[in-house]
This record gives sequence, C-alpha cells and structure tokens, in this order.
Amino acid sequence: MKTMALGRRWSRIVLPALLCVMVVGGAAFGGEEGRAKYVFLFIGDGMGVAQRQAAELYVAALKEPARSGRDRLLMNTFPSQGLTATHDLTSVIPDSSSAGTAISTGFRTRSGVVGMDADAKVPYETIAESAKKCGWKVGILTTVSLDHATPAAFYAHVPSRGHMYDISLQLARSGFDYFAGGQLMEPVSKSDPDKPNALEEAKKNGYTVAMGRAGLDALKPGIGKTIAMSANVDQFAAMYFTVDQAREGGHVSLADYLVKGIELLENPEGFFIMVEGGRIDWACHGNDAGAAIHDTLALDEAVAKAVAFSRKHPEETLIVVTGDHETGGMALGFAGTRYTFSIDKIQRQKMSYIQFNSRLEEYKRAHNSTADAKLEDLMPLIQEAFGLYIMPDEEKAVLTKTVAAGKTQGASDEVKNAGRDAELKLKSGMALSDLELSVLRDAFKQSMIGRKERVKDDHAYLVYGNEEPLTVKLTTILNNKAGLAWTSYSHTGAPVQTSALGTGAEQFNGYYHQTEIHRKIMAITGLR
Amino acid sequence: MKTMALGRRWSRIVLPALLCVMVVGGAAFGGEEGRAKYVFLFIGDGMGVAQRQAAELYVAALKEPARSGRDRLLMNTFPSQGLTATHDLTSVIPDSSSAGTAISTGFRTRSGVVGMDADAKVPYETIAESAKKCGWKVGILTTVSLDHATPAAFYAHVPSRGHMYDISLQLARSGFDYFAGGQLMEPVSKSDPDKPNALEEAKKNGYTVAMGRAGLDALKPGIGKTIAMSANVDQFAAMYFTVDQAREGGHVSLADYLVKGIELLENPEGFFIMVEGGRIDWACHGNDAGAAIHDTLALDEAVAKAVAFSRKHPEETLIVVTGDHETGGMALGFAGTRYTFSIDKIQRQKMSYIQFNSRLEEYKRAHNSTADAKLEDLMPLIQEAFGLYIMPDEEKAVLTKTVAAGKTQGASDEVKNAGRDAELKLKSGMALSDLELSVLRDAFKQSMIGRKERVKDDHAYLVYGNEEPLTVKLTTILNNKAGLAWTSYSHTGAPVQTSALGTGAEQFNGYYHQTEIHRKIMAITGLR
Repeated sequence: MKTMALGRRWSRIVLPALLCVMVVGGAAFGGEEGRAKYVFLFIGDGMGVAQRQAAELYVAALKEPARSGRDRLLMNTFPSQGLTATHDLTSVIPDSSSAGTAISTGFRTRSGVVGMDADAKVPYETIAESAKKCGWKVGILTTVSLDHATPAAFYAHVPSRGHMYDISLQLARSGFDYFAGGQLMEPVSKSDPDKPNALEEAKKNGYTVAMGRAGLDALKPGIGKTIAMSANVDQFAAMYFTVDQAREGGHVSLADYLVKGIELLENPEGFFIMVEGGRIDWACHGNDAGAAIHDTLALDEAVAKAVAFSRKHPEETLIVVTGDHETGGMALGFAGTRYTFSIDKIQRQKMSYIQFNSRLEEYKRAHNSTADAKLEDLMPLIQEAFGLYIMPDEEKAVLTKTVAAGKTQGASDEVKNAGRDAELKLKSGMALSDLELSVLRDAFKQSMIGRKERVKDDHAYLVYGNEEPLTVKLTTILNNKAGLAWTSYSHTGAPVQTSALGTGAEQFNGYYHQTEIHRKIMAITGLR
Repeated sequence: MKTMALGRRWSRIVLPALLCVMVVGGAAFGGEEGRAKYVFLFIGDGMGVAQRQAAELYVAALKEPARSGRDRLLMNTFPSQGLTATHDLTSVIPDSSSAGTAISTGFRTRSGVVGMDADAKVPYETIAESAKKCGWKVGILTTVSLDHATPAAFYAHVPSRGHMYDISLQLARSGFDYFAGGQLMEPVSKSDPDKPNALEEAKKNGYTVAMGRAGLDALKPGIGKTIAMSANVDQFAAMYFTVDQAREGGHVSLADYLVKGIELLENPEGFFIMVEGGRIDWACHGNDAGAAIHDTLALDEAVAKAVAFSRKHPEETLIVVTGDHETGGMALGFAGTRYTFSIDKIQRQKMSYIQFNSRLEEYKRAHNSTADAKLEDLMPLIQEAFGLYIMPDEEKAVLTKTVAAGKTQGASDEVKNAGRDAELKLKSGMALSDLELSVLRDAFKQSMIGRKERVKDDHAYLVYGNEEPLTVKLTTILNNKAGLAWTSYSHTGAPVQTSALGTGAEQFNGYYHQTEIHRKIMAITGLR
C-alpha cells in the first residue's frame, strides 16, 4: 500500500550504538524555548479520538466533578493537538507491538514484532535506550504486565510479542531505572527450566523489587534501579480496571506510580518516562465503554502529575500524550438512539466486563445444567453492575397510562409533564426494551452452554466476538442506551489524537504518522 | 451539559449592522504574514476523521492514480491540522443547520435553527454577510440544493431549516455575488401562492440564472450577481453523486463551479467563498462508503483549485477545510474482518446506493407480486453495481479442493501458493458468504414487501434504518468486506478534522469547537 508514504523511512541503525550522541544546546527543532530534558510520554493503548471524547463528555456530564474540580479531560486542554496515523507495515490496522515500535524507534515494522525490523533481523534503538545512554534516568510504567507489548517496545527487541519470557529477561538486563505497574507475565521460561527466573535476574542486576503500596512507599531517592509491582493483579499480571479498583479502595493507581517515579528519577541530567494506560485497549476489545472511560480518566490523573512537575521546570519539560491505535471502532452515536446522546447513563456502571464475568462464572458453577438457569436470577447483579433492569408489567401499565393521559386534549400542564416524564422512563430509561431483553435471553443461553459447546460461526462472532456472550451484550446495550456504539472487537485504522505541552510542544500540531513522534522528541531533546 | 464550555459565548449582535467594521492592517491574529483577503471555506457535510482517512487510503490503494498524480488527499497535506468539536445547544450530536450556524456566525444554537439564536428570535450576522458589507465578493457553492441547511447558514436566518421557501427568498435578496451547484428545492411557497417565485425574485434583484454547462461557460467577469445551477439534479434539487456522474461523463463538477467562481469573484477588495460537499453526508446516512469517498475526492478536487489560486496570492489567501459533523459513525475496522483492511474493494462499486435504488424500483415495478421475485434476478445488476456475486457450487468445490491440496504434506510451492490464492478467493474475495447471502435474502424480501407494508419496529430500524433494505445491506456488506463499518444512520458527536493553508493557517492547529472557526477567520481577515 502506498500509505507507507505517511511514515518516514530512515536508514537502519544497529544496536548497540557505542556512545551517547547528543546535540548539546542544539534545539534546532525545539526553537527558542530551549531543550527539553524531562520527557513524559503517555500512551493510551487503544485510545482513539472517540475514547478521549467519551471520557471528556463523561466528565462534563458528572454532576459533582470528583476529579480535582476539573470538568475537562486535562490532555484535551494541552496547547498542541495533532492527529496521528498508526498504519504499520502489515496493515492499516496495527497491533500494539508494531505501533509501540513505531513510537519508540521511529520505524515501521510488521504487526507482532517488538523493536526490530520487519524481518526481525535488525534491532532498532529505542528512544528510552538513547536517553539512558546519554545519562538520563528512564522509567517505564504500565497498568498491564511489565513485559506486555507496549512497555516492551521501549526496552526489548524480539521477533514476536509472544516471546514474553525473552522480553522479561531483556527488562532485567535493560539497566533502566524504574519499572512500575503490573507484574511479569512470564518470568520463567516455558521451554527451558534451566534458564534464569527474570525477576531473580533483575535482582542479580541490582534491581530492588517493591511489592504493593508498602513496597512503593518504602522506596526513597538513591535506592537505585527499581521494579515496583502491584500486589493485586489479574491472571494476565495486569492491574485491575480502575472501575473495579474503586470498589475496593486503597489501591495503588497509575498516578501513584508516576509520583514515585518522578521522586526517584528527578536529576539534573534528565529523564524519560513512558506511562501506558494499557487496559483502555482491553476494555475496548470487550466493547466496554465504562471500563475504557475510567481507565482513560486514570491515565489523565497521571497526566496531571506530570503537568504539576512541569510547573517546576517549565523550560525543560515536554509532555506528550498519544494513543498507539484505536480499538473497537468506538463511535459517539448509535443507530437506535439517533441524535440523542446521554453518556451520563455510563455512570450506572459499577464494574468492568471482566469483574462481571467472574461473578457470572460463580453463577455458572452453581448451575451445571442449563435447565434450571434463568436470566432473572442474575437481574439483581445486572442492575448492580450496569443499572439495567426489567420493568415490572404493572409499572409499565401505569407509565403507559400516564403517557396517554398526558396526550389527551385539554390535559393540564402538570398531566402533560407527567406524561412526558413517563414516556422518557419507558423509552429511554434504564429499563430493558423487549428487543434488548430478547437479545439478552439469547446471550444468556449462549453463556450457559459454555465456551466449548458454543457454535462458533461467522454470525456468532459478529454478535459476541470471542467475549462472554451475556457480558458483551450487557455492556453494548448499556453503551447503546448512552449513544455509544462499536464496530469491531479488534483494533481499527482510525487516526488517534496526540497532545503536547511544554518545550517544543508546538511540533505536535498537525497530522503525521506515529513514527514522527520519535523524531520530534529526539529533535526537541537533542538526543540522537 | 457542561460541554458548552468548549464553545465561546459571545454577546449577541443584531442584524443588520449598519457598517462594515474592519481592522485595517490589523492582523492581530494573522501574525507577521499579513491579512487574508481571499478566503475559501470548504465544508464536507458529514465528513469526519474516518471519512477523510477512508478517502486518503482509497487514493493510496489506487493502482493508477487518476487524480492529477496525487496519491494523498490534498486537504490532509495542509500544514495546519486541527480537531474540531461539533456539539450544539440541543445535543452532543448536531445537525447541519446548527453546525453550519456555529461555523458561519460563531454562535451555538439549537438543532434545526439556521443563523439565529436558540429561541429563533435574534438573527446572527454571518461571516459571509460581514465580508459582503466590507466590499468583498461572496460565493456560496454546494453539491446539494442552494437552499439546503449548510449553504443557508451563510445567508439566511430562519427558525427552521424546513422553511426552505423562506430560505430561497432570502437567497434572492442576499446580494451575494455567486451561488452555484444544485437548484432550489422550494422556489415557490407551499402555503401562499401569491408569494413571489424565489428565482423570479432573484432575477428581479439583478441575478443572472445560468443553467448547466452551457450557462456556466457563458458567464464572464463583469456579469454581476449570478446563480449557476446544475441542469441534472435529483428530486431533492441536488447534483448527482460523483460516482454516478462519472458514468455519464461531461458533468459539471464542484471544482468546475469553483473555477468559474474564482474567475467571476476575483477583485482587489477580496472574496469569501464557501464550498460544500453536501452529499458526503447523504452517502453516510445511507451507510454507503463508496459514494462518500468519491464525493470527498470531488471536494478535494475543488480544494486543489483553491490551492492553485493561492499560489498566485500566497500572502493574501486562506484556505480552510472542515466538516460540520460526522455522519454514520464510520470506522476503519469491522468485527468480521478483524485486522485486515482492503479498501481497494470499494473500487468495485460503480454506482451510489441512490442509483441502485432507482434500478431496484424498475425491478419492483416489473414484479408486482413477491412470489415471482427472486434475488438471483438482480445478481447481474448487483455484480455490476457493487462487485458482489454468488459463487457457483462447482467453482466453490474446485477452490476447496485446491485449498486442501495446498495443505497436504509435501505439497510443492506452486501447489501451496495456488492453495493460498484459492483460500483468499473463497474467504475474502467478492463472493458472498453464506451468512451475507442469507442477510441479502432477508433484505430482498423486505424490499419487495414495500415500504408501507414493512414491519417498522426497533429491530427493523437497527438492521435497515429508513433505507431500502436490499440496498443498505449491499453497501454495508461491500463496506464490511473492505474493513469499513458503521454504527448509525444519523450524525454522531465525534470531532471532525479541520485543515488550513495560507495566511494565518497556523491558527487552525489544535482542538477547538467549530464556533472558533468563525472567530479565527474574522481575526485573520480583519473583518469584524
């Protein structure tokens, strides 16, 4: 495809370069403001334009803004805003490893490859490695496992993102100063038990491993190289969704990890810190707008910490916020709701699709046979989780009467208003419509049949993807009621939004391929 | 909703202001480059980020670029690129009249209102009126009817876009110099036969009415006020879709109308020309990506004419390209095609959904009873129009065998390659899958039942919208095969892309509400 013209092709460079190469006092690109030496790069995985807009509208719709009084998404208020194309060498639709590599190295590669060329023969130097060589401190933060594709793109060079043990080992040997967020997915080699445990290897290389809140709090400047991991992670070694964490309280947030990172890494030479909101993507794969919005807001809270730091070093700090690609084809408009949009309904959601899945599993275990299982059993949980409910026939009858009364000739204003309210409650409230209920009953049956016995044809995939049928229909019905909709369970090729604040920020205006993010940061910092 | 914070509220101004107010030599905003006095404002109706990206990828995928050798969308290469929020006072999802009013006057209003405040009491002065008062020439071009919401937002002030006769009359009395594109939808009052014909009124006011190619060619500088209309328009007084025009040849394009407009309006004082690609929106309402892409490319061809003009007056020209809102929730990724994207398939489309509809009507008239109607009758037309076909069982059997042969152990490279090609043809070619065929058979039945007898419930709306069932399924199946998908038959609340080139263009970087477009152009031109 000729779309490659969007991305700049550079001559290949081979790792390891021997020396830090830096244009001292360069700022050929940064302009009169000087050279940035404190760089924050935020990546919302799967965070496209619509995801940011949805989070922004959600915050604006909150009746009592809890977010430090802000009623905007902070990243959306940055002075520089651009559009970024994300196509990789395989497809218009990239994956997180090719997209991460494009951002971290300035090179396009094939989907699935991390930090290397398309043939997986030549490793590309990453911006974090360039920074490290020049005496900067480097931090890599993510809400998912530390050996996941996006963080890996900054320190690892492997032919496939699936080689997670190799990635873990490269983390342990990276020499980077601060890793934080999830745990490691594969610290132990599956193929060769004689190979070292990556976490042990890290300790041998001088890393302090800090676990949970207590471990994090104990870290003080001067501690040296550190890996700070969440004590509570899921089966993929990732931090829980923000919407689920909030239920428990006392969790360590991405913003908490960043605050500690700044404390540990601040030094006169400079630092490069990459912060990934990794589960925005996972939520969008599951077509769960609520979970995506809350994780986008959590990323924005971390952005606020970087902005606070930049006030101390306004001439030397650059903050960039981008997405690596869009996930799900999220749209701010749904056929069924036409021109109405009521994102406030997403506030009814109190748990992620994953959390609901685990509650559903409990129910399934208690109901081995599908014969005695019925959707009604789950309705209290469904209402708690998503605010959706089945309106009793009596209530429906009363509301229908009230609507009719409001429409009779000569009705008083009071009766008319009551009629309108009743109509709203009937037609656009949280009660499930007959159509929605029939969709849920089908999905419930599919969920109870069990993954293995389920028919897996093209039609089933279009309706449920590879998700838990009942759950994906619950999130999409809630989303649709709010006016949000999806087209895919995969990534899409839509451009993402890139925002910048601080030294050289104006370079991030415009429309460019994500490989340019690398080039711009290199130029603004003087790194080569 | 607090999202109103995105839009700047200004104090109200009342029409008509008595004098041209102009900051002579102002350029407070335009910067050192000076003041723009030739302004082109292109509006792609319904043209969001995805619509532009789809057109860009389509052009890149063309094997032999026919578009003056360009393999990019010209508007996407402009030096300044911004994101623009489109929310109006009614909803996150605006309509073309509120969005047009926001752009033309800098004020938000309610959906449906043209050039007035939310209560439809106060008319707002439009940027075109401001320009006219200051001695500039003004041109208003569109592919749809001249009294449609978007063009109307630049010269009319009515409580509802539906008051098309009133709009026509205000056009006739506007004093603007050049109207071009479609015809008038309602030149005659439906309620009062004594009211004047708007076109006659225009002639009385000094307008020359030029019809078709010959009329256009006869127009020479000095002709005075002119209305140039397409001779071939549809039942909505709009120009035909570009994809349909191309079949006939010799049509007058939007670019042709702009070339003539520049010829007629060029003068030392300056001009303001608004050019609308109005049917991009219509195509997206019908979920027809092919028609949308071709009309986006036609708008881009018009943009190229403005760029050519700007080379003659580089210090005094500003070109802005925006969308008024997104339509359809178009996404560059579909569940069924996952990570593959093959927009080249859209090249198979040879007519718009509207053109196909009219061919379908012919078939319906010939088959009064549904009993003797069958989808197979239409397959030759379907293949001609959209490239979709039913693969004969024998061909399927041969291909299936070839696939199997390619997968047998020890198969030669030649056999393996043939197997892979066969698999591609079977799975991702233009042949209809069983699932797609069953969807089409259902849709065909619904189309043959006829609009009046059709069941109109929520489910039917989700599947077919208010479109012709067979046609909307044909376009969406073709779109889906290419990797494109839709979430709505209405507009959505996604931000659109705004691009600028020329004097003051850098002001159009960033993320802002569409009301700011008015403010920026006013500041860059010095108009007040």
